[in-house]
Amino acid sequence: MAKKMSETTCEDFVGALAAKTSVPGGGGASALVGAIGVALCSMVGNFTLGRKKYAHFEADVNRMLGEGESIQKDLLALIDEDAKAFEPLSKAYAIPKDDPKREVIMEKALMDASMAPLNIMRKCCEAIDLLEEMLEKGSVMLISDVGCGALFAKAALLGASLNIYINTKSFSNRAEAEKIEAEVTAMIESYTKKADQIAAAVSLKIRGEA
Amino acid sequence: MAKKMSETTCEDFVGALAAKTSVPGGGGASALVGAIGVALCSMVGNFTLGRKKYAHFEADVNRMLGEGESIQKDLLALIDEDAKAFEPLSKAYAIPKDDPKREVIMEKALMDASMAPLNIMRKCCEAIDLLEEMLEKGSVMLISDVGCGALFAKAALLGASLNIYINTKSFSNRAEAEKIEAEVTAMIESYTKKADQIAAAVSLKIRGEA
Repeated sequence: MAKKMSETTCEDFVGALAAKTSVPGGGGASALVGAIGVALCSMVGNFTLGRKKYAHFEADVNRMLGEGESIQKDLLALIDEDAKAFEPLSKAYAIPKDDPKREVIMEKALMDASMAPLNIMRKCCEAIDLLEEMLEKGSVMLISDVGCGALFAKAALLGASLNIYINTKSFSNRAEAEKIEAEVTAMIESYTKKADQIAAAVSLKIRGEA
Repeated sequence: MAKKMSETTCEDFVGALAAKTSVPGGGGASALVGAIGVALCSMVGNFTLGRKKYAHFEADVNRMLGEGESIQKDLLALIDEDAKAFEPLSKAYAIPKDDPKREVIMEKALMDASMAPLNIMRKCCEAIDLLEEMLEKGSVMLISDVGCGALFAKAALLGASLNIYINTKSFSNRAEAEKIEAEVTAMIESYTKKADQIAAAVSLKIRGEA
């Protein structure tokens, strides 16, 4: 089995992003940035456990650590899932425009290429929900890390959305495109707002202003 | 010499972020997210070079690739610089509050701990300038990657700023704190706006709306 992308060093991953290769690209980068966001949430949880002041949140924090670990693992796996869908898409783009089989192959490739970023978005929403709860229950000593986590999860959410729209706009099946785009738009509306509220609350706590 | 943090795998870096260790934390994570942002700018440049349609931008794109590589390298190095400043700070926090030497040691540690995130912010501003130029001169086929780059550079800029404010608010030297905070605020004002404009232009191009 080929090495997973998450098993390359950060330096090599960033180098591969910069290079003239289609993957990793914006989709895989979004998955990694999302994983970084949720990992910061877990860091706050890990520093909160065992502190007397937060003893009444111990069970919640333990649950959140389990959820965070699972989201983090899923997002790291999505780097590869995003890459896997790209090859068939780039092959579909190479099919001559007058080939009668092109449309069906292209449609499937576009659809498949939308699934990983859609799942990245869903995981980023879960991460933002977790960060919102950590803002309330996590140690205030690490509040800047909750803020960073929210900023990164939001950027990953929006980054993944660009990688969906760029595919759905080429779907022949407009009903399917609109269905996916409706989910994307709904996630953006609820969760960028929620992430902004977390970041504003952190800023207020640190700087005394929002 | 110890292994650089950028030489750990993405999975291990994210795992170390999540763990109960102070570094890497939000500062180092911001540096990596910024490096991911500028790498996406370089990816667009690398796919633009050699294309007839963009031949008139060839010299500019080559220059931008050089600048991008340098910013990317600096941001990866800043992961370790941020970590290095943390240990003296955590030692300073451990000095008993009635120790007369505490204030001087603490002041220096807080100041030192603010420098890496300040440099991360400066590099993210340079990345956003580059992404703005790439939006104009890079291949439109990769416009979603320009958008992702801008989203990540902006999140990294804001993430690093939280790691500055949390230190400057404890400076005894208020004049120095205000000087640093003024630079931070000015960068945020100019560059979040610029990043938002890039992301809006990308969205307009992809979705036909801003």
